[in-house]
Parts: sequence; structure tokens; C-alpha cells
Amino acid sequence: MEPPYYAVIFTSTLKKNEPAYHELSARVLKEAENQPGFLGMDTARSGLGISVSYWKDMESIRAWKQHMGHKAAKAEGKEQWYDWYRIRIAEVRQDWEWSAL
Amino acid sequence: MEPPYYAVIFTSTLKKNEPAYHELSARVLKEAENQPGFLGMDTARSGLGISVSYWKDMESIRAWKQHMGHKAAKAEGKEQWYDWYRIRIAEVRQDWEWSAL
Repeated sequence: MEPPYYAVIFTSTLKKNEPAYHELSARVLKEAENQPGFLGMDTARSGLGISVSYWKDMESIRAWKQHMGHKAAKAEGKEQWYDWYRIRIAEVRQDWEWSAL
Repeated sequence: MEPPYYAVIFTSTLKKNEPAYHELSARVLKEAENQPGFLGMDTARSGLGISVSYWKDMESIRAWKQHMGHKAAKAEGKEQWYDWYRIRIAEVRQDWEWSAL
């Protein structure tokens, strides 16, 4: 991942946190991994959930938004799982890491 | 928060997850909240930790990077808490939310 690339920052709260929700998430991640331009995803939840997916360009994000499996998951998410969500699309300009090793 | 604004995406793994680490995080968040240009922060951890802080402009991010309390916390973090971290700086271009209410 060499900047510039793109990040979709997805924050959400759930109505209920159940195994079926995590199965849905895992299925969506697998589909995203097969999309052209997908660079990776980070995810964590402590009440508030944060998933950041990384993409090569805006084209890839648009294609993912139109993906049928993603659309179906989104409809299920709105109907059954999410209480609230927020989506931000951002251009990553700098990226560095540090390791204790 | 009206785009464009900026996001600092901080992902990390910990050597150990102890109350003293959460006290450090809470102190740093309080200091960030008093910085000019600070717009908010989202945070979650499930093994991997993700904190996304939002800022008015790159100026505010640079000033926060130079802030003494932040520098001290960073040194403590590297010495005692973090195993690994990665920082991305991104320009937020689109932002929308959905609510079940």
C-alpha cells in the first residue's frame, strides 16, 4: 500500500451482537477480498464498531458499492443488525508504521 | 463535520492490555479534545486496536504531533505498551450516516 490510496471508514452500533452478524461480516469480507482494487481491511469493536477497508482507487469503491452480495448484506444489515452507521470516504496521503521488534 | 476534513487512522497491537494503558489513552484523548481543530475520535479494540481522530486541517494535525503531552505519551507507548502501530493520514471527502430511528 503506497499512498495515495483510499479508505472507507465504517463506524456502527448494533441492535444486537450475535454470531449470525459475525457470519455476515465474514462473508462480506470474503467477497470484498475478491474485488479488484481491494487492499485490505482492519476491524475492531468495543460497543462502537470500526471497520476500515482500503482500496486502490475510487473506481474500486464504486464497483464494490454496486456489488450484489454487498448490496444484499447492506439490506440485511439495515433490517436486522445496525442501529446506526456512518461511512466516510477518505484519500490516504501518508502511511507509516513502527514495530518494537 | 463537513468534508473536506482530515482523519488520522491509528491501528495498533499491544504487548499487554492493562488499566494503566487505558488511563494513558484517556489522558491523551482529553488533551486532544483541548487542541484547536480537533473534531472528534472513534476508538475500538478487538486484539487489533483502531482509533480514528478527526481534524479540521493538516495544520491541526501537525500541531498535535508537536504537543508535549502527546510526545510524552508516544514515548511511553513505544516503551511500554505497543508491539506495533501504523498511522495513516487521510483527507475525508465524503461523509454520511444512517440511523434506524
